[in-house]
Parts: sequence; C-alpha cells; structure tokens
Amino acid sequence: MAYIAIMGHGTVGSGVMEVLLKNKDSIAQKAGEPIIVKKILDKRSFADLPYRDLFTMDPEEILDDPEIKVVVEVMGGVEPAYTYVKRALTGGKHVVTSNKELVAEHGAELLRIAKEYDVNFFFEASVGGGIPIIRPLNQCLAANEISEIVGILNGTTNYILTQMRLHGKTFEEALSDAQRMGYAERDPSNDIDGYDAARKIAILASIAFNRAVNYKDVYTEGISTITRTDMIYAEEMERAIKLIARCKDEGDKILAMVAPFMIPKTSPLATVDDAFNAILVRGDVIGDVMFYGMGAGKLPTASAVVADVIDAVKHLKTRKKEIWGEENCEVIDIGEVRSRFFIRVAYNDRSAAVDVVRDLFGEVNLIFCASPEVTGEFGFITREEPEANLNDRMAMLNDNSAVKKIQNRIRIDDKL
Amino acid sequence: MAYIAIMGHGTVGSGVMEVLLKNKDSIAQKAGEPIIVKKILDKRSFADLPYRDLFTMDPEEILDDPEIKVVVEVMGGVEPAYTYVKRALTGGKHVVTSNKELVAEHGAELLRIAKEYDVNFFFEASVGGGIPIIRPLNQCLAANEISEIVGILNGTTNYILTQMRLHGKTFEEALSDAQRMGYAERDPSNDIDGYDAARKIAILASIAFNRAVNYKDVYTEGISTITRTDMIYAEEMERAIKLIARCKDEGDKILAMVAPFMIPKTSPLATVDDAFNAILVRGDVIGDVMFYGMGAGKLPTASAVVADVIDAVKHLKTRKKEIWGEENCEVIDIGEVRSRFFIRVAYNDRSAAVDVVRDLFGEVNLIFCASPEVTGEFGFITREEPEANLNDRMAMLNDNSAVKKIQNRIRIDDKL
Repeated sequence: MAYIAIMGHGTVGSGVMEVLLKNKDSIAQKAGEPIIVKKILDKRSFADLPYRDLFTMDPEEILDDPEIKVVVEVMGGVEPAYTYVKRALTGGKHVVTSNKELVAEHGAELLRIAKEYDVNFFFEASVGGGIPIIRPLNQCLAANEISEIVGILNGTTNYILTQMRLHGKTFEEALSDAQRMGYAERDPSNDIDGYDAARKIAILASIAFNRAVNYKDVYTEGISTITRTDMIYAEEMERAIKLIARCKDEGDKILAMVAPFMIPKTSPLATVDDAFNAILVRGDVIGDVMFYGMGAGKLPTASAVVADVIDAVKHLKTRKKEIWGEENCEVIDIGEVRSRFFIRVAYNDRSAAVDVVRDLFGEVNLIFCASPEVTGEFGFITREEPEANLNDRMAMLNDNSAVKKIQNRIRIDDKL
Repeated sequence: MAYIAIMGHGTVGSGVMEVLLKNKDSIAQKAGEPIIVKKILDKRSFADLPYRDLFTMDPEEILDDPEIKVVVEVMGGVEPAYTYVKRALTGGKHVVTSNKELVAEHGAELLRIAKEYDVNFFFEASVGGGIPIIRPLNQCLAANEISEIVGILNGTTNYILTQMRLHGKTFEEALSDAQRMGYAERDPSNDIDGYDAARKIAILASIAFNRAVNYKDVYTEGISTITRTDMIYAEEMERAIKLIARCKDEGDKILAMVAPFMIPKTSPLATVDDAFNAILVRGDVIGDVMFYGMGAGKLPTASAVVADVIDAVKHLKTRKKEIWGEENCEVIDIGEVRSRFFIRVAYNDRSAAVDVVRDLFGEVNLIFCASPEVTGEFGFITREEPEANLNDRMAMLNDNSAVKKIQNRIRIDDKL
C-alpha cells in the first residue's frame, strides 16, 4: 500500500483522482501495490464527492505526514507550488508535477534537490500533456545525441490555426471558438502569444542537450498576426502554417524559438490538427522520431501524471537518473539565426515594387495569389540569411514609395 | 565499467558497435559508467575492423564469463538465439534483444526466466525498430487500459505501397525497387505476406492486454494482391491503402490481425509513407497517441538496442517489472470479425451485375472510377458484418452470370 497526496483539485487534479479510481486494479498491478490517496489539498470543499473526506486546506497535513511517500503537485503557477515541492523533496518525498511554469522556472534546482535527498522528481505531464516525451528522451533515445526538437506544443493555437485553415475563419473567430470549446482561457495570451510553448521547449532543450535553457531566453512570437490571407497563400504554396517550437544544438550556443512557420504539407507535422500536439525529435542514430497525441486536457494530462506516480511507487527506494543541464546555456540571438521569410507586399506601383524586391532580395520568385480575395499585393520567399539582414532589407522595402505596406512575414522551412 | 557482449555482427550488431563507439561519452554519462564490449560472437572474422580482437566463435566465452553482465542478442532467428538467451538469463546475465522471431515465439517464457533469476530481459528493438513503443506501453501509458493498437509495423511493405501510390508502379516494380534499396530481402515473403507484422502485433498485444497472444493465431494477409487499379480507386475515394496490424481488446477474446486496409486520408496513419512505421495506441485515459519513426534499418534498430543496454546497465541490481500475459489468450476467428469490405466487380452485364450486388448487399453506393484506365468494372463498400457473412455473399456474387469476376476486396475502416 503506497500512500500519496494530491495538491490541487482543479482540472488535472480531479482527472488524476478519476484515473486512480477508474483503473485502480491494473494500476496496483503495475505499481506492485495499491496506490491510496490519503489527502487532497484545495482551498475549496467538494461536499458532493465520494472522497470529500480526503480534502484539507493545510499543506502541513501532507508535508508533515511520513506515511505519504509521493506528492502530486497539480496546482499550477510558481507559488506556492515551488515552496511546497521543495518542502516535499527535502522531506524525503517523491514529487510528480504537471506544472510547466514550475518546471521551466525551477526544474534544474528541483532535480538537484531531489538528487541530494535521494528522491524522484518526475514531470512528464509538463510537456505534451499525455504524450510520452520526457521519459523517451531520458531513456528510449539515450543512445542518441539529439540535434534538434521541433514541436507543436500548444493545443489551443493549433486548434485556432486548424479552424482558420479548414473553415476559413478569422483569427478572432477561431479564438472565440477555442474559448467556447474550453481550449483557450479567458485571457488567452499565454497560449496565443507563444509563452506556453516557450516554457515547454525550454524544458525539452534542457533535457535533450543537457544544458539549462532559460525559458525567458527563448525567442517567442505568437499567432495573432496570422490572417486568412496568409492561409490562402499557404494553401496555394502547398504549405501549412503551424506554431512551431524548436530547439537546435548549434555547438556553443542553442537555438530556441517559438514562431509561426510555413511547413510543407508533406511534413509529418503538417497533418497534426485541432488540439493535438506532436513532437519531432532528431537524433544522430535514430533519425526522426515523432510523438503525437492530445497535449492538454484533463484526462490526457492525468494519464501522464498517474504514469509518473506508478513509476515513483515502483522506485520508492531507488532514484532514477534524470538529465538536466546545470550550467545556463547561451541562446542564439534571433538576429543571428539564419532563416527564410515568406513576405507579403502590398504595392502602390506593382512593377516598381517588383523591381525594389528584386534589388533588395535578388531573383526571387513572385507569388501572385489566384484567389479573388487577394488583390493589390504579391508574396515572395527570401533566400536563407541571418534574420537581422532580412529585417534590414524589409525596412528598406517598407520605406520605398512603390510599396504601400509589408502585410506580413512568416518564417518558412522546408526541412521541417 | 560495465562489460557487455554482442551475439551476432550482422546489420544490427555492427550498428550497435558503431553507436557505442560514436556516442561513447554521453552513453557512459547516461549509464552512470562506461560500457565496454568485451566479446562479439560471430562465425565470420572481420580482420579489417579496429575491434577485430573482440570476435569469438565460441558462445561459451561469453556465457561463461562472469565479468560480462549484459548480453546483446542480435543474431535473429529462433535458434541458436533461444538457447543462448536462456543460458545467459539463467547465468544471471541481463539480456537485450532485437529478435522479433525469438520474442514472438518465447517472450513470455524468457520474461518468466528473467524474473526467476532476477535479471532484465529487454526487447524494445523487436517492434518498431528505433521507435520507442515497448517502454511507453509498460511505463508511460501505465495509467491506461489499452483498448486497441493499430500500426504500420513493416517498413518494406509500406515503402512498396507508397511507391505504388505516388509513382503509379505495379506491385512487382515497387518490390524490385525495395529490394534494390535494401529494404526487402531476396526472399521477401516474410515482409510482403505480413508475417513480420503479425509477430510484432502479437508482441504488442501480449504487453498491452497482459494476455499472451500467439503470433500463429494472428490472421494474416499480405499486400501482393494489391494492384495499381486498387490505388486508383483509393485515390478517388480519398483513402490510402496501408498494411495495418491491429489488435483490440474484445473482452474474453482478442482481435489480432494483419491485412491491407483502406483508411481515410485524414487519418494520422495515412501520411506515414516510405519505410516509416507508426503505432497508434488507444487508451481509455489518454485517447489516441501515436509513435512514428524508422521501423527498421541498422542505426534506428541499434538506437533501441543501445537504449536497452543503457537501461540494463543502470539496473544491474534491480529488475524492472515488465508486463506480458502468462495465459494464452483466444484470438477471435476472422469469420466472426465485423468488417466492411470494398469490393471491385468486373461485369458481363453491367445493369444485371448492379442488381445482384444490391440484392446481396443492400442499397450500397456504386463507385465508377473516372480514370480511363479502369473499365468494365465498378466498386462498392459493404455494410459492417461478420466476415463469414460477407464471404458467403461474395461467393454468391462471384457465381452470378452477370458478374465476370470479383477483382479484389479490401477491408475499409474509417475509424483508423
């Protein structure tokens, strides 16, 4: 009999309870012993629940209870989760969390404390919801040097982009849909501006490259500038627009960024639609391997949390070795990153604008959209160059009187 | 320093050596100590290799060496691998294998022996090459009751079907391509007749459902009957033809089969092309999760083998619990499986043939192919029924004088 406690009874916490009850027998078999929830921390009371007697508002009832061997932290946010998790670890308790803010901010430190106190700190659910990715990186791909990770790590933005592409919705319409479906929060900035994905790619980079990547250093762009017209161009160019989180080992430095990308329709990432997530890992031995599934939601996230709990119970007396770089690693400045841009130019004078584009960017192919919805503009794809150079050229283009306005620019990568 | 031995220096064995040498340092870091290959068993000698001194033709030099803690069996085939692996396990050595014949035939017994002698028996590479699937099933998805696994588990057949679809090749042309590319063996029956995939799905079913599924009980059809015309119909119907291995928990019995299926183009499995594999797992908590990558080949397979070796070295003193059903489980007779068929009918008398089809199969929609290549025939999709009934109706259809011949029948499933 292994006693555990759950801190937080929101979406994920109640999902964890549901799964532990539903699959009680098979979970006990896999863990080697029954897993019993002794306490649940929450400020609210849940008088209607059959397990209402487990609730407490006092964290000490959990942290001071020597019988509780595993603490599941699913409160979200850095504080008070950070304080409680540290207390649990230093008190010799194993900790399982789904809290990406906590892991992105304090992952390296918490793993260090876990090592010192000879306990496990598991956080599979913090990236990709239910999709197994942390454990595969640590174990299944251990023979590889990982060169790059490319992911669709945020379900809300992927749902919005899918709605825009398939149903011709505007960004605003698709966002309200996502909010109505419960995918997006009332304040959606964390998702749509890319911050959620930035935390997750920082976590993955820190594990894959064994060097600590600060999520604040991840260059981050969201999807709010993506328009229906961009989608029309993408369709004509046989590409999909996806919010891509990527990290790449560039030797001394690491490339880590989140931004919308146009990727070929033949990419395995292009068909990842709706609220699904996918994570493509490039290893020197295995080549490309991809993990796909629901990246968020009550039960998928609970699936990963409970798997961690089972693993913790199986390893109550042996600590599993986890990789996370100790030294802070330098992230390449976005201006130095070599990219290709797809640029849309609205013109005052079409032929003069074409001349300026060719003066500035060379003999690029122009894309005139066949759709009658798109007039007075054309698009083109630049060569690969450091982004600082591309930005300089764009500024000159924008200043030219033949050009009315640069409508948008989206990164393009045919190797994704 | 952990000493290991490799049995077999063919494609996989030489790949394992290559990876252990290439990523020596990071592997040592992850394993907690350097991994040293002390002996390699092979009948041939490799005088040009820098590690030529490691070779032996005598298995006793490995099995009798107490310094060797982990044996990597990558010889393939049931014997003598089975004898050596048993000897290694009963001698207290951990064993890692990529040998699907061995695991499909003796997996349950070898896991039982490993348990008895308190050592690990790992076989991640036996299914899906480098794609992590055994460990995710055992660990990452442990919170789930798995209801179904659907996979593209054979790279050779997937390459052939992709060539036929994209380049209009015949089966025979695509097969010679695959042989030229080194994907298919000179005697390709094991791949193209589905036996390889049958072994793999039997292994996955035994783990996912915790009941032993005998690979000989898996209903198996290959792809040699698939024609260019089938591909043309599939294209018109917005479907892809894939060799699907599936297993499904049906309560007392298990459905386990390998056969070509028409699946919707929007399925995540439909875009898995060339020699790639993918495995879709359906869990009651996580929903659908998919794993994608190279399912065969020297280095991808070595990636999984070496990951197992690292895990074995990390767990030299603790046995990891693995799931594999002990009792043999009954597999549903194919005649009882409820399926839908896509059937192609060449007619002597078109309107009479249509009448017979509707008499026998009800008000089905007829599919007349727009392609000028396809004449004198039409297709239709049946309702879902036990296959025995569908076969009876097909026999009656075939006997009718209005019908020249049933050209082909392919299972169709829009839920894949």
